[in-house]
Amino acid sequence: MKCKRCRAKAEVQVRHHNAAFCRPCFILVFQRQVQRSIEKHRMFTAQEEILVAVSGGKDSLALWDALIELGYRTTGLHLALGIGEYSHVSTTKTVDFAHRRHLRLITVDLEAQGLAVPTLARFTKRPACATCGTTKRHEFDRMAFENGFKVLATGHNLDDEAARLLGNVLHWQVHYLAKQSPVLESTHERLARKVKPLYRVTEYETAVYAFFRGIDYVVDECPNSVGATQLMYKDTLNRLEAVMPGTKLTFVRDFLTSGQPAFSAAADGAPQSCDACGMPSFGTLCSYCRLRREVETKQLMWQPPRAASDGR
Amino acid sequence: MKCKRCRAKAEVQVRHHNAAFCRPCFILVFQRQVQRSIEKHRMFTAQEEILVAVSGGKDSLALWDALIELGYRTTGLHLALGIGEYSHVSTTKTVDFAHRRHLRLITVDLEAQGLAVPTLARFTKRPACATCGTTKRHEFDRMAFENGFKVLATGHNLDDEAARLLGNVLHWQVHYLAKQSPVLESTHERLARKVKPLYRVTEYETAVYAFFRGIDYVVDECPNSVGATQLMYKDTLNRLEAVMPGTKLTFVRDFLTSGQPAFSAAADGAPQSCDACGMPSFGTLCSYCRLRREVETKQLMWQPPRAASDGR
Repeated sequence: MKCKRCRAKAEVQVRHHNAAFCRPCFILVFQRQVQRSIEKHRMFTAQEEILVAVSGGKDSLALWDALIELGYRTTGLHLALGIGEYSHVSTTKTVDFAHRRHLRLITVDLEAQGLAVPTLARFTKRPACATCGTTKRHEFDRMAFENGFKVLATGHNLDDEAARLLGNVLHWQVHYLAKQSPVLESTHERLARKVKPLYRVTEYETAVYAFFRGIDYVVDECPNSVGATQLMYKDTLNRLEAVMPGTKLTFVRDFLTSGQPAFSAAADGAPQSCDACGMPSFGTLCSYCRLRREVETKQLMWQPPRAASDGR
Repeated sequence: MKCKRCRAKAEVQVRHHNAAFCRPCFILVFQRQVQRSIEKHRMFTAQEEILVAVSGGKDSLALWDALIELGYRTTGLHLALGIGEYSHVSTTKTVDFAHRRHLRLITVDLEAQGLAVPTLARFTKRPACATCGTTKRHEFDRMAFENGFKVLATGHNLDDEAARLLGNVLHWQVHYLAKQSPVLESTHERLARKVKPLYRVTEYETAVYAFFRGIDYVVDECPNSVGATQLMYKDTLNRLEAVMPGTKLTFVRDFLTSGQPAFSAAADGAPQSCDACGMPSFGTLCSYCRLRREVETKQLMWQPPRAASDGR
């Protein structure tokens, strides 16, 4: 097979675009797709400073790499979530990536603060993925605000967006459907604009890009994601994609043009401010402060029996 | 396992209702579900005469059987579509069912009129399923009108509705989403109200009901449906259902309460009347009359070469 752009020997096939590319052309085409998404949805300009949320996985590192190659001004933000060995490897890969390329990286160590995801899950008896989501959202927002960033970019790819959309549609979560978008404008003085420049490239394309660019990323999935509903939705969509290439892209793209306008009436209004931390909230306390207080209270309650059993 | 209602030995398990039933209780519960759908959506009353579209398959025969058992006044309507042996068997099973139970049955023989589905597909070069859909819609409407029926019932089950919904959602077909419903009120003087009393029971439940009731139906799928997109969507939903029982029912039920209201603005207005047949149409000619004219024109054009080759 030959490269669609330069007719050299192709190294990768992109079925949903009915095209194949050699390595340099694939990298160029990938970056152009990212650029096009940024421009089409007015995500940010070359003058703005972008805070890029980086987990150490292929998507966020590929995003960071592409943004730098496209000439954007970026700073990385990494959360050390305290999910055992998985988190340690993730942090190492992220720090290495930033160090080798002389990039600015902000790291928040949640484990050191006693707020590791397993701790939150254990004390609140909530699913790990729920506490992780609440933590990430809060810390991303807080760090963007405290460090003066107006734009926060995440590495969500087409597979992520399609799976999330399928989940929202299977349960007709109209509030979520109203705000699922590659760009979420700020609705609060402390909230940055949130953007997903990879929303039109598949997980496969991102993996190929990371490989071609020599990015060293965490290959393992998060141990908490085993059996996660999101992975099942991804698998479902991949089966449809195999029979009808382009299913995922059509699903997400046509949602934005045809589906979502119908749900605009279901959009939440602007949030208030959390009484505890001042960040956006739809109640007196934001969901993160509620989570944190629950953990702190239960940790206090749990100490006496532990001390007693130690004494026996 | 024991029957949820009477504690006798259960013969069938209904996972999405987390229940098992013995034969008599399953039949009763099935019929009650049908009754509840009819009442909930005000499909029809015991005073109305219902035209039931019957293909000879399990769904439509189970529907007809349940409606009779529930005491409704029904007449069957069967179209002999001319799809080879499959259609012949379907017609035989339908006629037998009506005959044995002394039911009124109207049969329209499309093959005898030279309008068999394979003929329509061959001459118009359209997919067989598309010509079949257009034909059925037209003939159902026409026969209901000409025979004075105000209600037309079809055997679409939960799997049909969920698969159709998934297809409409994957492509964000907002016009179709606006009108996918277990009840379509008449929007034209010649149009009957269309209802789907089985929309909350799965294909599996319908098959079990047909078996328990000793209904002799066509087991084979239509030969044209092999590889059909609809079957792929059913398979997709069945995989999700296996992991998360209730997925299909939630998807369809929550669509009606939460999803569909958002699409009401996309609903078509009332149709006009077809210049040729007087039935509802969104153009000068209805889609069936356009299809028919295309076939008749092409059949005429095709005769001379055939005659010439006969003479050689």
